[in-house]
Amino acid sequence: MTIHHFLNTQDWTRSELDTLLSQAAEFKRNKFGRELEGRSIALLFFNPSMRTRTSFELGAQQLGGHAVVLQPGKDAWGIEFDVGTVMDGEAEEHIAEVARVLSRYVDMIGVRAFPKFQQWAVDREDRVLKSFAKYATVPIINLETITHPCQELAHILALQEHLGELKNRKYVLTWTYHPKPLNTAVANSALMIATRFGMDVTLLCPTPEYALDPRYMDFAKQNAVENGGSLTISHDVESAYRDAHVIYAKSWGALPYFGRWEQEKPIREAHRHFMVDEAKMALTDNAVFSHCLPLRRNIKATDAVMDSPRCIAIDEAENRLHVQKAVMARLMVR
Amino acid sequence: MTIHHFLNTQDWTRSELDTLLSQAAEFKRNKFGRELEGRSIALLFFNPSMRTRTSFELGAQQLGGHAVVLQPGKDAWGIEFDVGTVMDGEAEEHIAEVARVLSRYVDMIGVRAFPKFQQWAVDREDRVLKSFAKYATVPIINLETITHPCQELAHILALQEHLGELKNRKYVLTWTYHPKPLNTAVANSALMIATRFGMDVTLLCPTPEYALDPRYMDFAKQNAVENGGSLTISHDVESAYRDAHVIYAKSWGALPYFGRWEQEKPIREAHRHFMVDEAKMALTDNAVFSHCLPLRRNIKATDAVMDSPRCIAIDEAENRLHVQKAVMARLMVR
Amino acid sequence: MTIHHFLNTQDWTRSELDTLLSQAAEFKRNKFGRELEGRSIALLFFNPSMRTRTSFELGAQQLGGHAVVLQPGKDAWGIEFDVGTVMDGEAEEHIAEVARVLSRYVDMIGVRAFPKFQQWAVDREDRVLKSFAKYATVPIINLETITHPCQELAHILALQEHLGELKNRKYVLTWTYHPKPLNTAVANSALMIATRFGMDVTLLCPTPEYALDPRYMDFAKQNAVENGGSLTISHDVESAYRDAHVIYAKSWGALPYFGRWEQEKPIREAHRHFMVDEAKMALTDNAVFSHCLPLRRNIKATDAVMDSPRCIAIDEAENRLHVQKAVMARLMVR
Repeated sequence: MTIHHFLNTQDWTRSELDTLLSQAAEFKRNKFGRELEGRSIALLFFNPSMRTRTSFELGAQQLGGHAVVLQPGKDAWGIEFDVGTVMDGEAEEHIAEVARVLSRYVDMIGVRAFPKFQQWAVDREDRVLKSFAKYATVPIINLETITHPCQELAHILALQEHLGELKNRKYVLTWTYHPKPLNTAVANSALMIATRFGMDVTLLCPTPEYALDPRYMDFAKQNAVENGGSLTISHDVESAYRDAHVIYAKSWGALPYFGRWEQEKPIREAHRHFMVDEAKMALTDNAVFSHCLPLRRNIKATDAVMDSPRCIAIDEAENRLHVQKAVMARLMVR
Repeated sequence: MTIHHFLNTQDWTRSELDTLLSQAAEFKRNKFGRELEGRSIALLFFNPSMRTRTSFELGAQQLGGHAVVLQPGKDAWGIEFDVGTVMDGEAEEHIAEVARVLSRYVDMIGVRAFPKFQQWAVDREDRVLKSFAKYATVPIINLETITHPCQELAHILALQEHLGELKNRKYVLTWTYHPKPLNTAVANSALMIATRFGMDVTLLCPTPEYALDPRYMDFAKQNAVENGGSLTISHDVESAYRDAHVIYAKSWGALPYFGRWEQEKPIREAHRHFMVDEAKMALTDNAVFSHCLPLRRNIKATDAVMDSPRCIAIDEAENRLHVQKAVMARLMVR
Repeated sequence: MTIHHFLNTQDWTRSELDTLLSQAAEFKRNKFGRELEGRSIALLFFNPSMRTRTSFELGAQQLGGHAVVLQPGKDAWGIEFDVGTVMDGEAEEHIAEVARVLSRYVDMIGVRAFPKFQQWAVDREDRVLKSFAKYATVPIINLETITHPCQELAHILALQEHLGELKNRKYVLTWTYHPKPLNTAVANSALMIATRFGMDVTLLCPTPEYALDPRYMDFAKQNAVENGGSLTISHDVESAYRDAHVIYAKSWGALPYFGRWEQEKPIREAHRHFMVDEAKMALTDNAVFSHCLPLRRNIKATDAVMDSPRCIAIDEAENRLHVQKAVMARLMVR
């Protein structure tokens, strides 16, 4: 018997995702349940969190379960992920023991582990998450590593709530400026899930260097073919926004500059005008706007866009609670 | 419909405060209830906490609710509070989003945010707390900012338990030395609540520069008039202690020196003898002694005073649990 | 009435320990109960934790109780433990207040406080733990200070599960190398509990300087006499491992070098070969291997030993949950 994890939406069928979304909508109507009665989840944060932590902790509790929050390297011991290594560095214990011991205590393990931003070839292996999946004997949930599948479900649920059927809606994932080179996780996730639901997707970014990792570009292309949508890359703001139904914003660092970010900085700085503003939104077909949060106002999107009735970022954030309850409940059925 | 918050006791009528205190006394007799069944509270700590965190977390749980503890800037993202700013600094998200998202997850939000100690003109605006109240759509509870209303209720409950009727009791708020310039929050709160309950209040401090902000001095004067008590400022230790029924100690930094604390330090150092000791307590009418805790022994009060049967600081700390349960239960009724 | 604490197994009779182990085995079969209904425990961590924190938090919850996790000096205020001191240093409050206030909020207090590694004469007083026991009016549980009694029970339960009767089994506590000089707590505990259960115990360490504190050596000798076992010190790896039934590994710093660790380092470095490996394990009578975790792989034990079916470290870690539930349930009966 293989354990069923929630590592990436690509591992789940469209029908399974639809079931999760229905269940999430049901939890949105009826908050409380006993689906996690006597169950527990360990939430491991290698990076900060506000929404993820709050929504998982409350979600578990509202279904009769309990969440334990751990921060390895801060309030818990540092962890080694290399196999066969002589552990004479900083880490006090190996993922093999951490995953096995936690599997004895809890029924699920959630893991947040951002890239190290030194070498993309290393970070793209998603080693922390995969190591947990390898050694744990309970389901693992991705709380954002190099993809963010919980955000994907919350995003799609919010889009369905506001737009109804999503097939062939014009969906724009727009890169925006940010003072730091950020994780591509949400961008990867946005492309995968938007194509999965048959939308006509445009990836708007400053230059070809801002294209995402081929693994995720390929998933998106394949999803588009299988679900009757499309995938286009654009560097032209105006045509990308024109007639769009969804504008989803995210900043990320260009992969070819990974680890030598000072060289990427001038390119990023030169594209501050990618910020989502009212003029750009006016080009759309009354599009909804969203972002995964946290968001720097007047850097990624203006106050006017954030405070407009077409901004559904708060709805998307709320939906984290509902979709994650659906994921946890589903994993506990198997 | 305006949301009812618990930001300051001055926003609540005396009758409402009396009801909270009765409910707290009832919770002290009967610890468990279902008043917060299915309810949750997010506790945001921008500064350390021991009593507040423990008592709120347990209090919510004992009434059937659940508390989530967050530390923005540490385990959660840093937050921007300025309006209209271009967020290119350290903060990753804006209070508008934080407050709105948390309002979707939880039923109440508690906020601890001490002053920055750079400019009193800025700190006195209580911006963090007020921003939460502005953007949140659920009740906000002050966990100590520039006032400490939960401490006020716990303090009054402890005084009522030990002294019965408080009207026209002689109440002394005495400044004490501390190696660092501290927050005026508890001092502001002590003056407001002691006058609110009609006590004859003396603010004992080294020099006129240690008077509190006019906003709170004025509230206290008005309270004294309305409740049949009085407010006096004194710099004379002996006459202040003479015949007192309550000695409440607190250290704070003098407002005129805000942000240039090195200039205040010699004044503070020159008044180390304000420490509460047995000789001073002997001048009183068998007064009870209290302090909000944490307290540095043999700096603010001697071991003998702290360990004496007239010290009610532990009772006051215990009462935090009971009064906060009353506050949460009350906010959830509206 | 004296309060019953769980500070050290030596304070408990063998019969009481047996009862705890039976109760733990029962909790292992039946996870949920109401023994801690309406009860709470504060878990104070002065040092990091993964297993202890997770297992106590979940254990309390599975028996109907609630755990509050505090980290004094990080998210809570720093604490002074000296008596009669003028508190003009870093600590903002005294253990007298901390213990008394927490005793008003919760029904038990767990304390993790490692040595400071400056002066063994100071650390061996176990002052933090003893101060809590002195001032608190509720039971205190040792979460590892200079002994680790919860680990002892988990260890014995795992040994009983794998070996049945333990009397006169050959038990080897082997020192191993570690890049840092570590706490002797688990080593002290291993000697005490193994002798308590009548095993024939060998303390294997590089030189006589690695012997443990006389207090614990004496407890172990006395236990051996009273329970029909024995205690031997050895510096010879081969004869120590020969025919052993249990190999328990732990690294610790040599007490004579306490606080001048740079002088101990070469001795430690010269004994890296104490690492537990398959060749050494082959000398035993098909011994089980264990360690308290965290463990540095290929430093303290090889991957092959850790991943072998004779390694019971994960079972021991799991048992922390069960034995701690038994301890909490027992302390709440009195």
